[in-house]
Amino acid sequence: MRDIDDGMPGAVDALKALYPRTGRAHVVGVTGAPGTGKSTICDRLIGSFRAEGKKVGVVAVDPSSPYSGGAILGDRIRMQEHATDPGVFIRSMATRGHLGGLSASTGDVVRVMDAMGMDVVIVETVGVGQDEIEVARTAHTTVVVLVPGMGDDVQAIKAGLLEIADCFAVNKSDRDGADKVVRELQVMLDMRPRREGDWEPPVVKTAAIHGEGIGDLRGALDRHAEWAAGSGRSGQVLTDRRKSELGEIMRGMIAKAVERRIEAYPGGIDGLANDVRAAGKDPYTAAEEILKGAMDGLKESGGR
Amino acid sequence: MRDIDDGMPGAVDALKALYPRTGRAHVVGVTGAPGTGKSTICDRLIGSFRAEGKKVGVVAVDPSSPYSGGAILGDRIRMQEHATDPGVFIRSMATRGHLGGLSASTGDVVRVMDAMGMDVVIVETVGVGQDEIEVARTAHTTVVVLVPGMGDDVQAIKAGLLEIADCFAVNKSDRDGADKVVRELQVMLDMRPRREGDWEPPVVKTAAIHGEGIGDLRGALDRHAEWAAGSGRSGQVLTDRRKSELGEIMRGMIAKAVERRIEAYPGGIDGLANDVRAAGKDPYTAAEEILKGAMDGLKESGGR
Repeated sequence: MRDIDDGMPGAVDALKALYPRTGRAHVVGVTGAPGTGKSTICDRLIGSFRAEGKKVGVVAVDPSSPYSGGAILGDRIRMQEHATDPGVFIRSMATRGHLGGLSASTGDVVRVMDAMGMDVVIVETVGVGQDEIEVARTAHTTVVVLVPGMGDDVQAIKAGLLEIADCFAVNKSDRDGADKVVRELQVMLDMRPRREGDWEPPVVKTAAIHGEGIGDLRGALDRHAEWAAGSGRSGQVLTDRRKSELGEIMRGMIAKAVERRIEAYPGGIDGLANDVRAAGKDPYTAAEEILKGAMDGLKESGGR
Repeated sequence: MRDIDDGMPGAVDALKALYPRTGRAHVVGVTGAPGTGKSTICDRLIGSFRAEGKKVGVVAVDPSSPYSGGAILGDRIRMQEHATDPGVFIRSMATRGHLGGLSASTGDVVRVMDAMGMDVVIVETVGVGQDEIEVARTAHTTVVVLVPGMGDDVQAIKAGLLEIADCFAVNKSDRDGADKVVRELQVMLDMRPRREGDWEPPVVKTAAIHGEGIGDLRGALDRHAEWAAGSGRSGQVLTDRRKSELGEIMRGMIAKAVERRIEAYPGGIDGLANDVRAAGKDPYTAAEEILKGAMDGLKESGGR
């Protein structure tokens, strides 16, 4: 998959060709703050799907160095027991370039895994904020992982997470305060406006390190997948998914077009920044000038 | 600042006009996971700057609902004691649109506050990952906030944060394990490759809720600002800043051009997604078609 991640020429053609073979995998997003143990939850979920003979793809979106352009963690150590299993494909994503963002190629990798015949693709993201929104858009079912005792900020965060969570996992539930988190979530869920037939996100207690609650979590994921495929809903679900894909694909194409334009500038981004500074130009005017060139390039290459 | 955030026509002209008046504020990024108490740290820092009569701008990048398009938190409640102080300007950012991302307009707001004469602009971000990278690029000095007892994930995260942190605050340092976090960070900092004259990120213990360690943190911020302005370095610092600005401004302009194109489509993004689906088109081909149209629009309007 190296060529896709790197935006090599021909990648878009390959993705176009693959596209008709996508749409069969169940894409599960697992997201939550550092320290919530979501890697362990992913690990247990892989085990649970593998026990049924399902093929599992894992896309781990790692924090990466903005300066080296490389991933810090590489493939997750805790997932290594699955790494030698031929039914499990693990891919760590790194952030690259100045303009892309994490999600530019995550969706491409998910679609490749889908086309390869994975039954389930798990997308694990670190962090709260933009990442979570992207997961919600890429995944069919989003699990938000919380733990007891993370302070007041979590209260506020939870409100934002209500919008994207199809399921909550309160992990490390052997710690004090787990029931309080469950209750608070339930109150927030009960308070939010909803219509008949809306999905009611279940709140599942897990202690993934001990394997506890994973069966319940699996049950919740499966029920959500069934619900989403249900009559009357699948049309909207497919449209929403197509919307996310379109946005994400455009963002990636644009970022690559601009990056190519900057690379073609003598001295690259450094040369450009120096020239802008030396000319006493404001960056808005400079950005407009570069973009006009990038747009021409994009039009000629057809987005490739 | 509504027009800038919303990408209203004329905003780019206003930003061009403001630009020569920017570059005087010290832009401080404060970033860390939920539950680390970074809002409290920001609050204490505002107090510390205000005690010296400095004017302070605060840009709080809130997690926001991907569906409602609005901020969940609004201006931070804990910052309200400063909200009536005429020397403090607080602005919460919401994520909007399908293609932008958080940082598209954060930089614009920072530059407006700078041009308005703020001595310090504090940018607070929630989350680990892409957000952090953006902060590191926008801010002159980035403070990464950690707390004791957040589990193994934090170890991994720390490695990524080494690259972007100009200063570490180990907050809630009255809790068990604070010294261990400090030692671990120090070991990691000692191990990383560095050259003579490189900045050595200090590790400061804080208990912001009790106001402890804020003086030390302020000292670290001021020393970093002095270091960055030092002989031989300011040229590179200015070039780096110009690079971040250029990337961020281009991303924002393109996102807006594409969003305008999508809005002009009958039925907007829903209509587009439905048509793509009905036509059995793959989203890569559809994305190329939309982008070509958006590029034409961008060229005609000169990026506005």
